[in-house]
Amino acid sequence: MNNPLKVGIVGGTGYTGVELMRLLAVHPQVEISAVTSRGQQGTPVSEVYPNLRGKVDMPFQAPEVDTYEDCDLVFFATPNGTAMHQAVELLDAGKKLIDLAADFRLQHIPTWEHWYGETHACPELVGEAVYGLPEINRDAITAARLVANPGCYPTSVILALMPLLKNGLVDPASIIADCKSGASGAGRGAKVQNLLCEVTESVKAYGVSGHRHLPEIQQILRSFDDSADLVFTPHLMPMIRGIHSTVYATATSSHAGVQQLYEDTYREEPFVDVMPAGSHPETRSVKGANHCRIAVHYLPHANRYVVLSVIDNLVKGAAGQAIQNMNLMCGYDEDCGLESLGMMP
Amino acid sequence: MNNPLKVGIVGGTGYTGVELMRLLAVHPQVEISAVTSRGQQGTPVSEVYPNLRGKVDMPFQAPEVDTYEDCDLVFFATPNGTAMHQAVELLDAGKKLIDLAADFRLQHIPTWEHWYGETHACPELVGEAVYGLPEINRDAITAARLVANPGCYPTSVILALMPLLKNGLVDPASIIADCKSGASGAGRGAKVQNLLCEVTESVKAYGVSGHRHLPEIQQILRSFDDSADLVFTPHLMPMIRGIHSTVYATATSSHAGVQQLYEDTYREEPFVDVMPAGSHPETRSVKGANHCRIAVHYLPHANRYVVLSVIDNLVKGAAGQAIQNMNLMCGYDEDCGLESLGMMP
Amino acid sequence: MNNPLKVGIVGGTGYTGVELMRLLAVHPQVEISAVTSRGQQGTPVSEVYPNLRGKVDMPFQAPEVDTYEDCDLVFFATPNGTAMHQAVELLDAGKKLIDLAADFRLQHIPTWEHWYGETHACPELVGEAVYGLPEINRDAITAARLVANPGCYPTSVILALMPLLKNGLVDPASIIADCKSGASGAGRGAKVQNLLCEVTESVKAYGVSGHRHLPEIQQILRSFDDSADLVFTPHLMPMIRGIHSTVYATATSSHAGVQQLYEDTYREEPFVDVMPAGSHPETRSVKGANHCRIAVHYLPHANRYVVLSVIDNLVKGAAGQAIQNMNLMCGYDEDCGLESLGMMP
Amino acid sequence: MNNPLKVGIVGGTGYTGVELMRLLAVHPQVEISAVTSRGQQGTPVSEVYPNLRGKVDMPFQAPEVDTYEDCDLVFFATPNGTAMHQAVELLDAGKKLIDLAADFRLQHIPTWEHWYGETHACPELVGEAVYGLPEINRDAITAARLVANPGCYPTSVILALMPLLKNGLVDPASIIADCKSGASGAGRGAKVQNLLCEVTESVKAYGVSGHRHLPEIQQILRSFDDSADLVFTPHLMPMIRGIHSTVYATATSSHAGVQQLYEDTYREEPFVDVMPAGSHPETRSVKGANHCRIAVHYLPHANRYVVLSVIDNLVKGAAGQAIQNMNLMCGYDEDCGLESLGMMP
Repeated sequence: MNNPLKVGIVGGTGYTGVELMRLLAVHPQVEISAVTSRGQQGTPVSEVYPNLRGKVDMPFQAPEVDTYEDCDLVFFATPNGTAMHQAVELLDAGKKLIDLAADFRLQHIPTWEHWYGETHACPELVGEAVYGLPEINRDAITAARLVANPGCYPTSVILALMPLLKNGLVDPASIIADCKSGASGAGRGAKVQNLLCEVTESVKAYGVSGHRHLPEIQQILRSFDDSADLVFTPHLMPMIRGIHSTVYATATSSHAGVQQLYEDTYREEPFVDVMPAGSHPETRSVKGANHCRIAVHYLPHANRYVVLSVIDNLVKGAAGQAIQNMNLMCGYDEDCGLESLGMMP
Repeated sequence: MNNPLKVGIVGGTGYTGVELMRLLAVHPQVEISAVTSRGQQGTPVSEVYPNLRGKVDMPFQAPEVDTYEDCDLVFFATPNGTAMHQAVELLDAGKKLIDLAADFRLQHIPTWEHWYGETHACPELVGEAVYGLPEINRDAITAARLVANPGCYPTSVILALMPLLKNGLVDPASIIADCKSGASGAGRGAKVQNLLCEVTESVKAYGVSGHRHLPEIQQILRSFDDSADLVFTPHLMPMIRGIHSTVYATATSSHAGVQQLYEDTYREEPFVDVMPAGSHPETRSVKGANHCRIAVHYLPHANRYVVLSVIDNLVKGAAGQAIQNMNLMCGYDEDCGLESLGMMP
Repeated sequence: MNNPLKVGIVGGTGYTGVELMRLLAVHPQVEISAVTSRGQQGTPVSEVYPNLRGKVDMPFQAPEVDTYEDCDLVFFATPNGTAMHQAVELLDAGKKLIDLAADFRLQHIPTWEHWYGETHACPELVGEAVYGLPEINRDAITAARLVANPGCYPTSVILALMPLLKNGLVDPASIIADCKSGASGAGRGAKVQNLLCEVTESVKAYGVSGHRHLPEIQQILRSFDDSADLVFTPHLMPMIRGIHSTVYATATSSHAGVQQLYEDTYREEPFVDVMPAGSHPETRSVKGANHCRIAVHYLPHANRYVVLSVIDNLVKGAAGQAIQNMNLMCGYDEDCGLESLGMMP
Repeated sequence: MNNPLKVGIVGGTGYTGVELMRLLAVHPQVEISAVTSRGQQGTPVSEVYPNLRGKVDMPFQAPEVDTYEDCDLVFFATPNGTAMHQAVELLDAGKKLIDLAADFRLQHIPTWEHWYGETHACPELVGEAVYGLPEINRDAITAARLVANPGCYPTSVILALMPLLKNGLVDPASIIADCKSGASGAGRGAKVQNLLCEVTESVKAYGVSGHRHLPEIQQILRSFDDSADLVFTPHLMPMIRGIHSTVYATATSSHAGVQQLYEDTYREEPFVDVMPAGSHPETRSVKGANHCRIAVHYLPHANRYVVLSVIDNLVKGAAGQAIQNMNLMCGYDEDCGLESLGMMP
């Protein structure tokens, strides 16, 4: 590897952190220069994550700006409200940034502050930040130095709805997104509610009255149709990885060409796969992979579209998409290091 | 036990069959007289289901009408299209019948024949059959000799919607039921699609374009409001037991008293538990138990109700409800033999 | 219920606590008088465990001796090192005690202090405590006021080995117990290592160099043969409930009658089921039930016995066995309230 | 890719078949030329396995020798007893063969015929076949045209034991291998016993009295020490992938250098990772990867070694190892296309 891209990973002990490392450790253009953790400084990364043994054996370092001195690009795989405190300094030092948390996703600062419960530390950067969904913002991402990596639920819901909404085929106020996620979306925090004995062999909804991904989805849907709104209901599934979004919307016109419309919309996309009419995508078909699989159905008796969309929340919903953004920002092939296929079984 | 009720179980090798036996083997008023199976004649029941060792050690017998000669009541835990061939003869012999399959659920014979793909063998009995959901048909069940035990999805969706629909609080054409079921709902057939390696760690929708439980739900909802219709989307979850129905409907009037309405509707019901406002029921809270837990939410920004409803598909969704019906038909306490609580963890 | 037995449960928020409540709430002779928790005082029990809604709705109380004033019998479902601090006072007040933790299991105080890392608070009671495995100590339990409920692994290993060791059929130094447990054995503590994402879809051994259940098993095996010793290796399985012990020992004499010996040994036992020769018991056959299923194999090419033994770690390995002991101590039928069968599927 | 290696996959519908395709589809030196299936001829491969959409869209072809005409190398991912019927013809046509089934694993034909229950179709080739475990046979594999890919259990057990046995550190008659496997090892056949509802949330042993991998392990262990023998007990785990072998053996001499011995033995091996003393490897650390992780423990009180060894049964235990062998046979880097790391979580 000549002149590898040197990257830093802030918050490497979480699940998006380890997924970044799993993928970056074998990325042909990248060298992992620094991995930080507030709680595990000094511990070898591969002691916490033995899957990385022999590949990422350096110790976790302190999450100070100096730590990233050699880095060309820094990923924040941290809790919400972390990246905004170091972004200015790192950008000033000439580094590119990708925040996998929510600090730069919402353009409307009061909305961000309402949902995230604190004052934004660098509102002046929010306008510059590019929402890192390549399927809608590829050119802007390519030119960006600061990318807000989308949330997992938003990625799956937005890709499911974009063709319908952009083309005015649905009542924009009729949307319901019933989303099912594996437990890795809840992170690696030591919480009773995420224990195997609490999660496995059970299903539940959560956050019915409001979830932080709602304003994020609304913001993007309204960029397609400014009257768009939705009901968004997340559910916790007894599994590690995967999001299945089942999206409902009332049709406003003939549905005859909808399959073709989806295929045309995503034909050139390396990571969006429109399945044949009548299909039911399974989350396992994208397990470990950066793909999104979509199937669109129309129900005549109810005049409704039902769009099914699956991603791996840790890949296309987090680390994989971040690397896709990195590839765009740094001039590599968009799918470089992301060629792996979903693991079935 | 003086004068126990003698029961027969037709089709005892399936999951509803074994669940009937698990519960009936310790029911204080019941003696299991005969268990039949076309494929396993002569094999001891407890060889197929070792959990029953010491309790149900008789062999599976041939599924002939004579086999049930001593029975007072016969459960059909068989595939659809089986009970209708033996019902007349057994009723004529004075036995009570409970069909856990769909032969007597739909009152409109052409609809049944459309969805089940065959000619109905005894349409003359369909009018007499009582839909065995005690919460809507208790008196009729008590007087019945033939009960059509409801489907698992319909049980959870109907109980979720009844208070809203009966009281005209929702647009009857706006209903969406997004339902999630464990794999035991698919039965014990040797099919690739139900292997652990195909189901676990994955989520998928199925039957989006049409599922047999749709007309069953429509029939009952229309008995509440004859213009009711719905979108019904079943999903397969990576777990054994449990159904979680997430039901959406657009509000037509003030929602102020909805929590109270639900509590009032189900206050006297031994097996329906309305949770406090803001709750998110988990399927595991009813694992192995005959309970249905419901929580009702109202979303102001979208003017929609979201009702969450959980059951164990093999208990309140099949065998437990059948025993609840048996208790009513035979004059026992409605919860006799059904006192067990959900298993957490 | 005339004159119900009033019981208290100390430490009701853990998994053995809720399992006690699940079973005791429908026990025909018992009234739950008090449930305590250091961390959840004032919270309704059924808010933490919704499966108990309508049955155990009282709040958790402070774990003070006064709280148990009305109780006839108190269960300690607490961490190790708790019961020993309240045992004297409660016994002096005339209550019977069952400790589900380890405080009274080891007769040799220095061994206890070595493995549990603290000074024993009431060594004078240890001699009086009866090891609560009814299959070896039924009469003593019946007469006891203080019972040390066995560990989950020891229950399954001891029942597997007793016939071989007591009858001198194996080399007592050749024993290896390779044990597999579900995650509920690790309790409900908020630890990263017990998260679904850390446990599911994986298997690992733990405590290979030493586990607290080793001296407990040694103590009982040596009561059968004082030269007995073993290698004990616990493994964590990706599931909630169940222990499968695979026990190896070298034969010292003809194995001809071993199946008969096992059947004779356990013929009168209500909760030990010796399966037919050649069987492979599954943990799910005892899920939620108080049974232990055992199969004994002999391998001629290696001259070794392989004994397979399964229990539900929360039932026969904890709460169920505690209730079995309570039944004996209080003069009820031994299986009272424990009639439920394993849940398959 | 200049002059890619053209490979054929016989029996592409099974789990080892799809795993080969998942890995080979992104292997930089390989082109998949033909995939066959007796049952699915004409169906696009990616219809059965949607994870391969866009990469392996050709239809399954008939499993005739002609189908492989363009292939340089053919993988048999078929049931036992299949490869032996086509091997002669394919080798005569100049192709290299790797059989992932058992046809060429046992050098002693009567032993093979005893365990596999049929007459061997080409015993004359068995002597030429190389047992494809690179860690013991690298040079022979490099020179081979016919490789017998090892079984999954044998791979994990042999790698665990080799350093101890080759160096005479254990009593060769004292070995016990207690092995735990995920359900994918049982294949994709439509069998009741492999349904999710039969496997998940349960653990069982199987084949205690004899399993086909026993003579395979014996054969290799005896190449290290001709008096070696073992007890081998396979267990079915409630998960998809992974084998955890817990191997016990009695020490014959000082254990002082055993950690060093393991590290020295495997230092140059690209896919065997000896963990630090005291470690407990988890199967998930190798999920989807071609690695084997090993930890060696010594228990002074019992004078026994306990060696823990984990692999992914579909990768290092099947398809990954087959590709490792292909790389050796065809002159590529041994880890080419096998760089992916285990997926945690």
